[in-house]
Amino acid sequence: MKTYLDCYPCFLRQALDAARLAGADEQQQKAVLDRICDVLKSIPSSSTPPQIGDQVHRVVRDETPGGDPYLSLKEASTEKALRLYPRMKELMAEADDPLDVGIRLSIAGNIMDAGPNRDYDLWDTVERVLAQPFAVGDGPALREALSGTGRVLFLGDNAGETVFDRVLIESFDVPVTYAVKGGPALNDATRDDAVAAGLDNVADIVDTGLDAPGTILDQSLERTCSSHFRRLYDEAELVIAKGQANYETLSEEGPKVFFLLQAKCPIIARDAGVPVGSILVKRGEAR
Amino acid sequence: MKTYLDCYPCFLRQALDAARLAGADEQQQKAVLDRICDVLKSIPSSSTPPQIGDQVHRVVRDETPGGDPYLSLKEASTEKALRLYPRMKELMAEADDPLDVGIRLSIAGNIMDAGPNRDYDLWDTVERVLAQPFAVGDGPALREALSGTGRVLFLGDNAGETVFDRVLIESFDVPVTYAVKGGPALNDATRDDAVAAGLDNVADIVDTGLDAPGTILDQSLERTCSSHFRRLYDEAELVIAKGQANYETLSEEGPKVFFLLQAKCPIIARDAGVPVGSILVKRGEAR
Repeated sequence: MKTYLDCYPCFLRQALDAARLAGADEQQQKAVLDRICDVLKSIPSSSTPPQIGDQVHRVVRDETPGGDPYLSLKEASTEKALRLYPRMKELMAEADDPLDVGIRLSIAGNIMDAGPNRDYDLWDTVERVLAQPFAVGDGPALREALSGTGRVLFLGDNAGETVFDRVLIESFDVPVTYAVKGGPALNDATRDDAVAAGLDNVADIVDTGLDAPGTILDQSLERTCSSHFRRLYDEAELVIAKGQANYETLSEEGPKVFFLLQAKCPIIARDAGVPVGSILVKRGEAR
Repeated sequence: MKTYLDCYPCFLRQALDAARLAGADEQQQKAVLDRICDVLKSIPSSSTPPQIGDQVHRVVRDETPGGDPYLSLKEASTEKALRLYPRMKELMAEADDPLDVGIRLSIAGNIMDAGPNRDYDLWDTVERVLAQPFAVGDGPALREALSGTGRVLFLGDNAGETVFDRVLIESFDVPVTYAVKGGPALNDATRDDAVAAGLDNVADIVDTGLDAPGTILDQSLERTCSSHFRRLYDEAELVIAKGQANYETLSEEGPKVFFLLQAKCPIIARDAGVPVGSILVKRGEAR
């Protein structure tokens, strides 16, 4: 998905949020915004939003020394989600269709996103998503693909959401490789976040080799996933990709990719042709 | 009121909205945003939001030839408000306290703002504001000031809102000078808009001499009200100032100014110490 002009104000807002989260003073916040203005002016029309988000959050980390602004938010998110883990396992045990419930739980977890909005109630979201009709419902195709594959490459998204993904993965009969980010990128899960969620017990954890949101595959770019990860991706028969940033970077990568997400931002919703707040199991399209 | 960093993303969004309203194509929209990025980088910390808004909307007018992007929106707003005029006059005729109802109607009309949000129902807003407690209630001081003055200088805000102001002004015993903008500035009322609202029958209409939102008085600035208007302002005993932009430019201009507004944006709400959506009759403070 290309970066729409509507994304520009949102990048400024995200940068300001992140700078404040990092404890930046007013002057540092202003320095961040000034540099983001330069970033926005130089966006090539082919860039996806996560590529710009990557630049935005590197500026924030650069201007506000003190490490990863999202670290404590990520740790708190994982703890919060882990407290719901027993209730989610009960739901799964009672489910007539565990795959459907598992997919819905994994999508519910996608609310734990520090980008568009941090104001939500987690269990309310679970209950909403359990009852909500799919705006795009490629679940049957995903079910069929799952039954015919020897392994799933599962592209994670945010810390905390990892716990919801774990519940889904525990319901699979097929082994899973779970991909996290190679370093801090917004509140996206890294290896530490995946381990804290207990994913190392149910999946092989790999990283994309890149500390950027989404999954950037274009090897001609300076900031792209490692060739090791790229090989894994190319060889995968079935990819489950969580969240908006993976949708934004991979939406045209073909039918082996299934996106599980909530459309939280109006621009992605418009791109996918659904209302804001929709839940989607969406099969990828060819470029 | 100073420009907060939170205003930066909002200026980008407003510029994009305005450019689209002006019929700009994607490339023109991008050119507008690029120039706004430069504007944002060069904001002096002392600037008020209307001073930046002034620059933003001049960039839009400059990059998207075709006149005033808000012209048809303004005309439609005035017509919409005029259709409610008879109902408002009925409310006034039945009112136990016409000044209170008139002030509330004038504040209700302040919803007609193309800046923060264009999505509202006009009569719903009237009914809400008629029943809503004032978050800041300097109405008694305004009543007293009105009874002791020979003339009111009334600083208008948006086209359409002008009709609501007319209803309030028609309830006054004291003559009114109604100030409009000297040229197109967002959806702010100009002389034409005031005349279309019928204000020329109930007030002397003057203009600020400047096509910028709010009321910029600092004569050391290049973009400032005319010295003719400045003299009117200085000589006024009582000033009623409508809307957010007048609050942003005049909030520290002393106790002869009474602000009538809805706090529609979170930054102004925080500055005034009230929740978003509040209605205010607020007396000005000394610098």
